[in-house]
Amino acid sequence: MQNIVLCVFFICEYVNSSHEGVVSQFNPSSLFGWSSPIIQAPMAGVSTPELAAAVSNAGSLGSIGIGASSVDEARQMIAKTRSLTNRAFNVNLFCHEPALRDTTKEAAWLQFLAPLFQEMETSAPTKIDEIYKTFLTDEDAFRMLLDHPPAVVSFHFGIPTADRIAAFRAAGVKTLATATSLREAALIEAAGIDGIVAQGVEAGGHRGVFDPDAVDERLSTAVLVRLLARQTKLPIIAAGGIMDGQGISAMLELGAAGAQLGTAFVLCPESAANPAYRRSLKGERAYTTRLTSVLSGRPARGMVNRFILHGESLGSPLPASYPVAYDAAKRLGAAAGKKDIHEFAAQWAGQGAPLAREMPAAELISTLLDELSSISIRS
Amino acid sequence: MQNIVLCVFFICEYVNSSHEGVVSQFNPSSLFGWSSPIIQAPMAGVSTPELAAAVSNAGSLGSIGIGASSVDEARQMIAKTRSLTNRAFNVNLFCHEPALRDTTKEAAWLQFLAPLFQEMETSAPTKIDEIYKTFLTDEDAFRMLLDHPPAVVSFHFGIPTADRIAAFRAAGVKTLATATSLREAALIEAAGIDGIVAQGVEAGGHRGVFDPDAVDERLSTAVLVRLLARQTKLPIIAAGGIMDGQGISAMLELGAAGAQLGTAFVLCPESAANPAYRRSLKGERAYTTRLTSVLSGRPARGMVNRFILHGESLGSPLPASYPVAYDAAKRLGAAAGKKDIHEFAAQWAGQGAPLAREMPAAELISTLLDELSSISIRS
Repeated sequence: MQNIVLCVFFICEYVNSSHEGVVSQFNPSSLFGWSSPIIQAPMAGVSTPELAAAVSNAGSLGSIGIGASSVDEARQMIAKTRSLTNRAFNVNLFCHEPALRDTTKEAAWLQFLAPLFQEMETSAPTKIDEIYKTFLTDEDAFRMLLDHPPAVVSFHFGIPTADRIAAFRAAGVKTLATATSLREAALIEAAGIDGIVAQGVEAGGHRGVFDPDAVDERLSTAVLVRLLARQTKLPIIAAGGIMDGQGISAMLELGAAGAQLGTAFVLCPESAANPAYRRSLKGERAYTTRLTSVLSGRPARGMVNRFILHGESLGSPLPASYPVAYDAAKRLGAAAGKKDIHEFAAQWAGQGAPLAREMPAAELISTLLDELSSISIRS
Repeated sequence: MQNIVLCVFFICEYVNSSHEGVVSQFNPSSLFGWSSPIIQAPMAGVSTPELAAAVSNAGSLGSIGIGASSVDEARQMIAKTRSLTNRAFNVNLFCHEPALRDTTKEAAWLQFLAPLFQEMETSAPTKIDEIYKTFLTDEDAFRMLLDHPPAVVSFHFGIPTADRIAAFRAAGVKTLATATSLREAALIEAAGIDGIVAQGVEAGGHRGVFDPDAVDERLSTAVLVRLLARQTKLPIIAAGGIMDGQGISAMLELGAAGAQLGTAFVLCPESAANPAYRRSLKGERAYTTRLTSVLSGRPARGMVNRFILHGESLGSPLPASYPVAYDAAKRLGAAAGKKDIHEFAAQWAGQGAPLAREMPAAELISTLLDELSSISIRS
């Protein structure tokens, strides 16, 4: 892992120097670091130990997301991943503020969804819950991770307290955190985190905004990376709309030290995506994504389906807070799934979805690196 | 001009082949084409004959926008540009559908703006008008252009009829048109236009959507270019969020044949931007842009000011159609300007605004080409 991170810093150093056009300063020996600037995005619910291990075994950084799992499930996922690879992998944690419960708001949301449950011949739940805990308050998850620390830990929706970040560093764990804005990136750097995942508006799945109620500039990945390259000395991992080696190459050109790809891995046989999700991603639906809060209570980009259209329809109430609203969506999706109806479950995807390719993770990694090779030739 | 366009095709050919990773097929002699893949965006109201000529004289493609000008003004702008350069330049035309007049809607919009006019110690107009004609129905502008054809003509908000496109071709005029989506790009290619300006959601100024009422996927420049590289054989000119040579390089990596930069040229002394606009672009305001229809009646990205906040406030009515709403905004902006208040006039800017640099256009072009030089070295 030390190597990987050193390489990331090397790459970053190279890229920054190249910004100044001082290409001559670039030391070819650091080229070794280019062997893979690729991180497979955590994608809780879609990534699996098999996917993360395949990516790490192929020499890139695989990730699993445990934000939506119980501590026991998480422990098992991590153990399973370790059993499949000796390489470094990344464990992603959700650091959102605890849900603000509002029974009136939640009841109104359930009432609004009732017709959809009815259509699925089931009744809407009378009550929805905070189906998983934020890492910010999850002492057990923190202890579990420190008992047997992974090589890399990444944070989404925010960052943990200084003492936890210090504890990870003391344990030799490298840390990453998602920023969607310059302000979030500054908070991440000030907290002493090792790298910034710069998530653009194109990205599939949940947008990492710290405060979902704040105004969102919705910067594209390219603009965010370019602005951050000027603001921070930390390695920047570009995320959002990157589907191939040319996309990775473009982000390195802009100053990124690496790229995190999510949607590009959904069609891998190792992912947990169900057949309906895969069909959508391979078909016309991949051309229509929407950034919406109606599925989970937080903005996330997915392929448009009936749930999104219903939730975004004129006069719809505000969804319950994250992840309480997600409880309702998951229940509806499950009920519909039993009837082989797939119009209500989240099918997360980024704007680059039509470029997703179906192949084993190891083959995808080598394809991405082949596409990237022109860079190494050039450099 | 033939050379320039040939080069563009050369570049495109190179880039497409490089997509397939067949770098060996690349013929270095076409490198000559790389001398400048840069187009200065038309930016009606901001670009000037001086700016366009300086860019063209520096070996890139300068542009003027005549969409908001009378035929006489346009004739003079073109003549002035010709008097300043012998090189090719681009004349941009607005091809929006004629405004749908709606007196009720227009009256409601004026009533909604009345408090702002009052604050500027003037009364809101009782009537607003379609302050300029769409090229689609402007026979005089068409004849004026054919009388003395410019080297390049570009279309925004749509495309003209087949006979006009054929007439431009017969006159040896190269044509470009803006696409914000794959569908618009397909219409442009089917119409026999020579190149596609792929405008991402980051772009400043007016979004080139053909139908402002249709659902907008709001694709980023990077994603749009990457998807179009697969769909079309036409040269793709990337537009949106591109501020420097690294940004241009990234877009070429993704399959663009060139890049169109607008916001990057606003601070040039040759632009028509007023001091307040320049102050905003050099200050904190550059970090906050909004894509809004309230200023003109069509979605356009500009730095947030009081007009935008008022127009986007809760319960605000729908703005009048484009360009009728623009009449109201321009009048308010002028009234405020007289009092040296600059909270109401449009200050268009893309998401990359904080990266704008203040230097003469010729110096900016050579700076951009220096930043790009690493590509030529590599290729």
